[in-house]
Amino acid sequence: MNNLDWSNNRNLSMLADFYEFTMANGYLENDMEGKIAYFDMFFRSIPDDGGYGIMAGVEQLIEYLKNLRFSDRDIEYFRSKGIFSEKFLKYLRNFKFTCDVWAFKEGTPIFPREPIVIVRGPMVQAQLIETMILLTINHQSLIATKASRIVRAAEGRPVIEFGSRRAHSYEAAILGARAAYIGGCMGTANTIVDRDFNIPAMGTMAHSWIQSFNTELEAFKAYARVYPDNCYLLVDTYNTLKQGIPNAIKTFNEEVLPRGFRPKGIRIDSGDMAYLSKEARKMLDEAGFPDCTIMASSGLDEYIITDLINQGAKINLFGVGERLITAMSEPIFGGVYKLTALEENGKIIPKIKISENVGKITTPSFKQVHRLFDKTTNKAIADVVTLHEEEIDDTKPYEIFHPLFTWKRKVIENFYVEKLLVKIFDKGEQVYKNRNIHEIKEYTSKNIENLWQEVKRFENPHEYVVDLSLKLWTIKDKLLKEKTDS
Amino acid sequence: MNNLDWSNNRNLSMLADFYEFTMANGYLENDMEGKIAYFDMFFRSIPDDGGYGIMAGVEQLIEYLKNLRFSDRDIEYFRSKGIFSEKFLKYLRNFKFTCDVWAFKEGTPIFPREPIVIVRGPMVQAQLIETMILLTINHQSLIATKASRIVRAAEGRPVIEFGSRRAHSYEAAILGARAAYIGGCMGTANTIVDRDFNIPAMGTMAHSWIQSFNTELEAFKAYARVYPDNCYLLVDTYNTLKQGIPNAIKTFNEEVLPRGFRPKGIRIDSGDMAYLSKEARKMLDEAGFPDCTIMASSGLDEYIITDLINQGAKINLFGVGERLITAMSEPIFGGVYKLTALEENGKIIPKIKISENVGKITTPSFKQVHRLFDKTTNKAIADVVTLHEEEIDDTKPYEIFHPLFTWKRKVIENFYVEKLLVKIFDKGEQVYKNRNIHEIKEYTSKNIENLWQEVKRFENPHEYVVDLSLKLWTIKDKLLKEKTDS
Repeated sequence: MNNLDWSNNRNLSMLADFYEFTMANGYLENDMEGKIAYFDMFFRSIPDDGGYGIMAGVEQLIEYLKNLRFSDRDIEYFRSKGIFSEKFLKYLRNFKFTCDVWAFKEGTPIFPREPIVIVRGPMVQAQLIETMILLTINHQSLIATKASRIVRAAEGRPVIEFGSRRAHSYEAAILGARAAYIGGCMGTANTIVDRDFNIPAMGTMAHSWIQSFNTELEAFKAYARVYPDNCYLLVDTYNTLKQGIPNAIKTFNEEVLPRGFRPKGIRIDSGDMAYLSKEARKMLDEAGFPDCTIMASSGLDEYIITDLINQGAKINLFGVGERLITAMSEPIFGGVYKLTALEENGKIIPKIKISENVGKITTPSFKQVHRLFDKTTNKAIADVVTLHEEEIDDTKPYEIFHPLFTWKRKVIENFYVEKLLVKIFDKGEQVYKNRNIHEIKEYTSKNIENLWQEVKRFENPHEYVVDLSLKLWTIKDKLLKEKTDS
Repeated sequence: MNNLDWSNNRNLSMLADFYEFTMANGYLENDMEGKIAYFDMFFRSIPDDGGYGIMAGVEQLIEYLKNLRFSDRDIEYFRSKGIFSEKFLKYLRNFKFTCDVWAFKEGTPIFPREPIVIVRGPMVQAQLIETMILLTINHQSLIATKASRIVRAAEGRPVIEFGSRRAHSYEAAILGARAAYIGGCMGTANTIVDRDFNIPAMGTMAHSWIQSFNTELEAFKAYARVYPDNCYLLVDTYNTLKQGIPNAIKTFNEEVLPRGFRPKGIRIDSGDMAYLSKEARKMLDEAGFPDCTIMASSGLDEYIITDLINQGAKINLFGVGERLITAMSEPIFGGVYKLTALEENGKIIPKIKISENVGKITTPSFKQVHRLFDKTTNKAIADVVTLHEEEIDDTKPYEIFHPLFTWKRKVIENFYVEKLLVKIFDKGEQVYKNRNIHEIKEYTSKNIENLWQEVKRFENPHEYVVDLSLKLWTIKDKLLKEKTDS
């Protein structure tokens, strides 16, 4: 992450909801700045009614937390508002981040109602970082989750992220492409992403290239002369079957083969892609180019790709644009950040937020998430949310139970356990080393393989089990009864 | 735009689709770098089946174009790819932007099929900037358009942008808040937007504030003591009607009034907001606080706001989050960038892109857009896309006609004309002075006032007329016949 012109030394400390600062000032005024608080980030539902989400954005979260500081200009800004105390302004000027932070590793499948980020630290600090934690993790997890769906629909055919021009601003394009790569895309159309993240950028020509020459054939030949070994031709500017593909074949025969190369492919960007790709395949095969790739790239997503494959479309490679980079079908990943405990005299006092909507009641206290895997198949069986220091002994059978319908019980045997919340900051110091992006992508892929097929299907996926340990459940139940009795 | 820590001196020149560079290199190899090309950015449909869009993002586009340059590191990146010529690398090293650029002013209502940005300049340059032009204008226009809908639905009640935590990355939050302000929001929750764009940031407390104290009443009182003159209380942490509002009233009576202030308001963030707001209004009125504002802020958009108002909800102020900042109901603004002409020996040669889909056929040549306003009402009557140098004489009746159904004709009288494409760069030098954001907001509001009510309604809005001048239509028709005959 060094040397990123667009991100280096950027300070996003002021990217926070104003209420974070009014509350922070309020905590100071009430002498509560040192009070230790615990916050969970979690989410309540998976976009597109999917069976799993993919964690992403941790690296950018780390960058942000490392750079937390307030400039003189920031202090002046707050002073000008006339509502912040000098004590608070001084606090901001000397601000030093000292929280502990835990997070799921990027690429880990994530499920509703489990903490995917935990912050422990002085109330004021833990509060100030809310907006950026949510923004960072929500965005990249949204795109990684969507990419994972699209890649799955493509059933092994490569998918390239193509959506920069419709992204919601610059970092949505750049970090969206990063998240899409984590989620399984093989590359991006966006050059800066290749330069800065080493994610392969790809692309050849737009319709304007074709239009810049007197004829389509002339345009193809000119391109083939410059890129004989990477000759990908866009065939739909005028008429795909009558003109585009015949001209492409002519170009391959006259300009590519004579130079000792095989043609790489054609791209279809409009029209009926099921029909066109099948016709194109026949024409290319007959011309002696069965190895010539057919790429499709117009308005695609997991639903349309599935449909194209079901129709027997002969597409080898998908370029997926706006519907991936905006997660169009459900463009919101609804992560929230809730207070779960306070410390009093070194003791953890669990806190709960009640709601008439049962799904909105929070789970109190300081936690860990344990993922139980089947020893024989390596498949993930269930996640158990426990108290932070709790251990699950995988040498013995372990009983899990549904947190609402507690008679639903199951004994797990022959399993091993992984703790999913990894410490990334210890007293404000980064303790987690970022992995390289290709490792993260590999890790994601391995993790998705470890999910049961039933969790991965598009229609009515099996709801992956996220339970509470008996200890944690007991604390929540007690607090719930206290609060609703009062 | 000075002194933005997060954006200053950022160089986004490499934020471009890879094919822009392969084409650019190809143009150089074919000795076409100096060829003068014309490109239009336009869009084909308005999100949410709305009657108008709002232009936004021009200021950021200008920033980008002013900073176009390629670093040694960029050159090395391209060299490492092994497909770019040394001539091209040298070209990039000495890159100087020399294009002419025209754009609609920010805040102008925009309609399908009219050029909202035009670029004229050397082929290579005009091509390289495609991705960023589209990205910048698409994003902010999307959000400004959505904000305008939401603000309209609120029928005069103020709307605040509240969505940072669900934005698609950092600039989506920051520039999205900027666009929302242009579109009519009165402020944002995002602090950095206030610091850098002088757009008022607002906010008071989260549920965590309430939870940090032993009781809700204690939390309210603590807040009121710190902010007696800006006392906005969040009343839904435990039970809005039974506990939240009674505690708020108690706090107002005991902590706000004695200090000589009036309470500002309450905020409801969950539950049935129609019912709760009506009950809350009664309770506050009875307690002597008819001036106490009721703010609502959960899952709102133009549809829900309309519905709430129809139900007689007593809400004075709306905080609109995720559905605005992501334009959830349709998160894509589909602007495209198409070659429209080339110059040969100083003569403009119009270019067209054919498609079986009539809506996707481009309009060739170098253009201007004229908006015709009724002299009596100031309402916008129609836009006429003309050749760039064409004048519309508003002292005489002017006949417009439908570009497809040419028998649909209408003579306009008693009108005045405004040319909407304003030059922002002349031979690579900025010639348009950015207006301040409040002026842009004012300008937007005035322009929306000048649209007929029929264009603004949510259901089946009247399709605003965008016609071609006879001269431009004749060129298009001729080219269309030539291309389809061949």
